[in-house]
Amino acid sequence: MSPLARSRSPLAIITDFGYRDHYVGAMKGVIASIAPDTPVIDITHGIPPQAIIAGAIVLRETWRYFPPRTIFLTVIDPGVGTARAPIAIETRAGARFVGPDNGVLWLAASEAGIKRIVKLTSTRHRLSNASATFHGRDIFAPAAAHLARGTPLSSLGPALRSIVHVEMPHVVQSSRELRGEVIYVDAFGNLITNIDRDRIVQFNACFRDKSLSVRIKPGTPAIRIVNTYAAVPKGAPLATFGSFGLLEVAIRDANAATHFGAGPGSSVSVVGPK
Amino acid sequence: MSPLARSRSPLAIITDFGYRDHYVGAMKGVIASIAPDTPVIDITHGIPPQAIIAGAIVLRETWRYFPPRTIFLTVIDPGVGTARAPIAIETRAGARFVGPDNGVLWLAASEAGIKRIVKLTSTRHRLSNASATFHGRDIFAPAAAHLARGTPLSSLGPALRSIVHVEMPHVVQSSRELRGEVIYVDAFGNLITNIDRDRIVQFNACFRDKSLSVRIKPGTPAIRIVNTYAAVPKGAPLATFGSFGLLEVAIRDANAATHFGAGPGSSVSVVGPK
Amino acid sequence: MSPLARSRSPLAIITDFGYRDHYVGAMKGVIASIAPDTPVIDITHGIPPQAIIAGAIVLRETWRYFPPRTIFLTVIDPGVGTARAPIAIETRAGARFVGPDNGVLWLAASEAGIKRIVKLTSTRHRLSNASATFHGRDIFAPAAAHLARGTPLSSLGPALRSIVHVEMPHVVQSSRELRGEVIYVDAFGNLITNIDRDRIVQFNACFRDKSLSVRIKPGTPAIRIVNTYAAVPKGAPLATFGSFGLLEVAIRDANAATHFGAGPGSSVSVVGPK
Repeated sequence: MSPLARSRSPLAIITDFGYRDHYVGAMKGVIASIAPDTPVIDITHGIPPQAIIAGAIVLRETWRYFPPRTIFLTVIDPGVGTARAPIAIETRAGARFVGPDNGVLWLAASEAGIKRIVKLTSTRHRLSNASATFHGRDIFAPAAAHLARGTPLSSLGPALRSIVHVEMPHVVQSSRELRGEVIYVDAFGNLITNIDRDRIVQFNACFRDKSLSVRIKPGTPAIRIVNTYAAVPKGAPLATFGSFGLLEVAIRDANAATHFGAGPGSSVSVVGPK
Repeated sequence: MSPLARSRSPLAIITDFGYRDHYVGAMKGVIASIAPDTPVIDITHGIPPQAIIAGAIVLRETWRYFPPRTIFLTVIDPGVGTARAPIAIETRAGARFVGPDNGVLWLAASEAGIKRIVKLTSTRHRLSNASATFHGRDIFAPAAAHLARGTPLSSLGPALRSIVHVEMPHVVQSSRELRGEVIYVDAFGNLITNIDRDRIVQFNACFRDKSLSVRIKPGTPAIRIVNTYAAVPKGAPLATFGSFGLLEVAIRDANAATHFGAGPGSSVSVVGPK
Repeated sequence: MSPLARSRSPLAIITDFGYRDHYVGAMKGVIASIAPDTPVIDITHGIPPQAIIAGAIVLRETWRYFPPRTIFLTVIDPGVGTARAPIAIETRAGARFVGPDNGVLWLAASEAGIKRIVKLTSTRHRLSNASATFHGRDIFAPAAAHLARGTPLSSLGPALRSIVHVEMPHVVQSSRELRGEVIYVDAFGNLITNIDRDRIVQFNACFRDKSLSVRIKPGTPAIRIVNTYAAVPKGAPLATFGSFGLLEVAIRDANAATHFGAGPGSSVSVVGPK
């Protein structure tokens, strides 16, 4: 295989289209028609319908693991057909992002360092007769596929100065407590929070490295922070830094979301020893 | 990469096998063994179990978006083990179709223009000891993979003259009303009907282009036909021409199937102004 | 495409991560970064959470259908973070297996003939800063990808002498009865048992080839063993040898698990004529 083939950038897809319908399949047909040799990778199509913040978090948590020039096609698009712009972004880290300008690209693109943004208006780089309801197939997939086969970003449309931001919910710190919230529940029922390791390390310094405990919702028992699921018996709750460096609350071999009746938005507090 | 590699036809798969089991995985193993360089694309494995008409519609709505020589492997096969023939079809548009002769291939193949049909009887092009319960792995996947690596259609078995047809439910038109039905509910709960844009345009001519309204089930309120979801407030119902040119009834940012208690077979009527 | 490219081994993945989250996507990013030209095939990510035996069966039932040098990356890993070793296995049949040493690799690897086992300790062949909660991304995916690009097994870590075994539940045979159990329920509701065709043939010899009948749970009606689903009317129960050579109980065009209230562990008995 030639060096050229070897350097082909993959195209990775995130949507909220689920697995029942043929929407993702139609997008892949469009990509195969424009850029037949591009490796296409499904990140997930299981983002909750129209959950922009969940899509933004998933994109932020995965982009770093892909080859540098990967094109991320992210279609969580409740505003399809409205004035929200279809965009593509080039970053200093090399990653390219394609999707609606509704915030879903913000967390990842700002981490990767935004270099250039364009609005996808070029009619030569979209399907003719683009529908008003399925920009994933008609506008975003063609733009991503054209990038994959080497079309420069600037050919896809005029430059934009800025994009829509979304922000993670803030962590509030007092002398006695760090208060955050659940931002994501995974398929195992683990409760992933917006509190990252650095924040905890800094907070813990106040208590001279004594152990902290975590509460998911007020009134529930305190939970220890441990290094692995295996540090507690089966069925016991634990808090740990999960695969993405965020504090998460789990129950060993069971479902914490069900157990605590918790989900996105549930409060989480970290407190020092009494 | 050589021109040969560049022109390799993809193999696109539609099944009702779902995502829990390893049936699709076993089929992909067979394909990789016979045609290791063929790009394999999942359209969907989420067709409702044994729903031939749903599979036929999904195939008809997606085949045009793929490269011209794509091989479509479609396994919705309630009659596995009965006398229904396993077949492969070549079309004037270039697309090839492989699957059971139970109607699932009809809508797409007739659109693409049937050129040649064969019955898959060649024992050299199926797994030895083909099972009576899993023709997807033992007969259809090998046939599709052999086509992908260049085996001529005629090597796979003897010619057939015709295949089983399925028809979309008919739309009934009177002077006052166009009456169709829901044929598909997507994962967002949108109700996709059998009424296409041409039909509406023609019907509307009777009323000199005054606005039409849509009713999903008798007795429910009239719904406006709009161009985009964004034309109505969040939570309001709308009718629009969806991504496949068919009239669909949706609720902006919500689930129309649940709201109306409607599903495949529910009646839909389009009426002119009083 | 060069002969080298043509012989590239695929990397096939089985996990219990489901389709909602981005865990599988992150693993694929790691694989694409290390071995960009390797074809990656999803077998299934729908193994029930932490069901080691189900994963072991799926791997055993699929590995033979793949090209000889395929690398199987199998992550069902309830013990992540405990002392269970991460391992890779080379077999006489050619297949390579990567995953946790908790039994999930045993059924397939022992069928394929274990030639060499290593413990995945090489820090050069895992992500730096491997987490304690996501070895799929940090240890197993990198090891599998390095194998795919030609790294010898012995570079990944020191040799191990043996691995953890799991066994299928035993079939108990008396003069009048063969007693087994349901080991797996597929998405159609078919009840797959641990009784294989050879066992039945041998048992049937006692009755001079008269017909046998099957009972799923005591007290339910006797079910005939037939060759295809089509041998019984729609809605009727049947027993047949399914796609993997195991006796399975199904209801034609319906769900046997729901009908019989049966699932993994439910008893199944095969008896001769009275």
